[in-house]
Amino acid sequence: MDQPAMTLLDPRDRSARGVAIEGDVTGRAAAAPATLLEESWRDFVFAEVWARPGLPRRARFLVALASAATCGLADTQLDDFVRGALTTEALTLVELREAALHLAVYSGWGNGGRLDRAVTRMSKEKGLAPAEVPPIRPAPWDPEERVAQGHAAFHKVMTFPPGPPSNPYLEGINNFVFGEMWRRPGLDERSRRWITLVGVCESGADIPIRSHIHAAMASGNCQPAEMLEFVLQYGTHAGWPKASRINGVVLDMIGKVENGLPWHG
Amino acid sequence: MDQPAMTLLDPRDRSARGVAIEGDVTGRAAAAPATLLEESWRDFVFAEVWARPGLPRRARFLVALASAATCGLADTQLDDFVRGALTTEALTLVELREAALHLAVYSGWGNGGRLDRAVTRMSKEKGLAPAEVPPIRPAPWDPEERVAQGHAAFHKVMTFPPGPPSNPYLEGINNFVFGEMWRRPGLDERSRRWITLVGVCESGADIPIRSHIHAAMASGNCQPAEMLEFVLQYGTHAGWPKASRINGVVLDMIGKVENGLPWHG
Amino acid sequence: MDQPAMTLLDPRDRSARGVAIEGDVTGRAAAAPATLLEESWRDFVFAEVWARPGLPRRARFLVALASAATCGLADTQLDDFVRGALTTEALTLVELREAALHLAVYSGWGNGGRLDRAVTRMSKEKGLAPAEVPPIRPAPWDPEERVAQGHAAFHKVMTFPPGPPSNPYLEGINNFVFGEMWRRPGLDERSRRWITLVGVCESGADIPIRSHIHAAMASGNCQPAEMLEFVLQYGTHAGWPKASRINGVVLDMIGKVENGLPWHG
Repeated sequence: MDQPAMTLLDPRDRSARGVAIEGDVTGRAAAAPATLLEESWRDFVFAEVWARPGLPRRARFLVALASAATCGLADTQLDDFVRGALTTEALTLVELREAALHLAVYSGWGNGGRLDRAVTRMSKEKGLAPAEVPPIRPAPWDPEERVAQGHAAFHKVMTFPPGPPSNPYLEGINNFVFGEMWRRPGLDERSRRWITLVGVCESGADIPIRSHIHAAMASGNCQPAEMLEFVLQYGTHAGWPKASRINGVVLDMIGKVENGLPWHG
Repeated sequence: MDQPAMTLLDPRDRSARGVAIEGDVTGRAAAAPATLLEESWRDFVFAEVWARPGLPRRARFLVALASAATCGLADTQLDDFVRGALTTEALTLVELREAALHLAVYSGWGNGGRLDRAVTRMSKEKGLAPAEVPPIRPAPWDPEERVAQGHAAFHKVMTFPPGPPSNPYLEGINNFVFGEMWRRPGLDERSRRWITLVGVCESGADIPIRSHIHAAMASGNCQPAEMLEFVLQYGTHAGWPKASRINGVVLDMIGKVENGLPWHG
Repeated sequence: MDQPAMTLLDPRDRSARGVAIEGDVTGRAAAAPATLLEESWRDFVFAEVWARPGLPRRARFLVALASAATCGLADTQLDDFVRGALTTEALTLVELREAALHLAVYSGWGNGGRLDRAVTRMSKEKGLAPAEVPPIRPAPWDPEERVAQGHAAFHKVMTFPPGPPSNPYLEGINNFVFGEMWRRPGLDERSRRWITLVGVCESGADIPIRSHIHAAMASGNCQPAEMLEFVLQYGTHAGWPKASRINGVVLDMIGKVENGLPWHG
């Protein structure tokens, strides 16, 4: 299944591979395509992108879920990826709930909510019990302790220390994003990276794009070859032009990380 | 209600504050959160963002409505903000109709339409009579007069004179955007700023972002501290990466306005 | 019908023109506007933008369809443009199916799917037989041949030769985007340009924006005056701030193409 698409020579082989992968990824039998566009899901997106080696299935699911929720895919398509992730056990219900909150932070609460509602629908379809997810912050806290925790989490995640939280935006970053959300145990740091990467790519904002692509590799969470595969997986949901920019930044940041340089170096 | 979130020490206090604010902002009783993401609306977005001082509730509603319509929130969430704005009398029905047209200009007619349809739904829910809004331009006009009116309105709004309307895009800017829309009486200039700011932030386009953030302050319509609060309020809908870029531009433009420099200075 | 909007003097004339054009463009009788925003569709978007000379109706439909699918217009509005394009025979069903695939590549498979589903709905409404569209690639192929075909198509479309496909993103560009999609016969190259242009404009990514705006003119597919009209047509769906940036790039690239310079020159 995981051989490069370049070895395909016959359109019937390509289609058969697409049908098989679509079944895994959506958790349902592939429907016969009714239009050219549906055919291209089978013969390109599933048969030639999802089939590639270099990025594990779990990571592809996280990229697909995050970008499906932000790039205008239909609810039924978002449902498909959630069903596929649950059915193949690539992600648990707890992880999906954490993924929705993480996406809210990096792509806005509206897009996070789209994913969360898809998780609710598929959870019901599969008859699952509600996820046992710990609350945002269960115990009383010392405000200074939260600031310190936020600083430490920022430093770990970004691989460089934060500036002082001197304005509302930076306070929110410190208190909630790093002081609470990134410290939650229900989803590992590597998985949070893929969601974060989709969020920064969709933002179009240069500093977050560069600093997070750098941090994903500098932290050791994501490998350079995986980052290049990420661009193609993301591009099918975001379109080639957005992916073009990200490909250039990934290549640039691979060089910096290899040479021990910071993202802005 | 309007004390900084930093003074909260107990999660029960935070949740109680979130429930109270959610009731105000949505015009309905807060529902018990069923998921982690819904919990984060209560315990972060409402309890720690909407609770902050520094930006009046009316401005927060305008930012929330504009960004909810453009950043992928569900129709029911857009309805909530419209209901809350009408119920608390933060905005009138006439103002909401003007806001939808203003949003169409700065975020496209599709997103303006999303807001307009939410206003229609909530207007019906509350049994309101149709808003008495004057037509786009009721009386016959002299084309040269419209051009002159557009120039004058551009100069007032942007705080610098326009170039000549020498191509189709600039003609449209002059004739309709400034010659008609910004001159309408049903919504004050300060309120139009918040909608404009969301539109330019979402565009990702550098010149509109910088020039409008500068003009919002140079005109006296918006204060520097309010602009910093705007970034956090906008960020909950747009996600942190987009807000990161805007925070940097706001800080830059505060310096320019304080020193009497133009946006490109 | 195709005289400049500047000659309008009376709001009743403007509204009457808007009603007439709305009927053509949507393939249904114009409804009386119920809100200010609906009035602005009639009195500005249809009466003053679609009425302009300088960009043929077929091109305006392609721009409208692509940007309606990506900029948050309601499904019913997307349906309107599809119905209008079919009813006026501006585009055939085959061309619309190709347009949806082309949009998927340049704006992501989600947005392409939105257009594709609208085409399916309107095809049913009009009782049309399914489009006879050739499959993605019907016959077995030699991988090296596909690479070579992709290189040649890239060179023709972009007007400069591609680099080597040395990473996953570039392989996807070469194999599918240029090696298969751009080579399909069902939609002419000029029409593919308008969809591509909307895709790159929405991406916000500098290199695709600049290189594709340049290539659209350097190839001879699109004329400079048409490109300036494109900005206004796109702006009504994308909002003025995004169009502002594109207007600047179009003016810049017109100068480069006139002087025989490359896009990055």
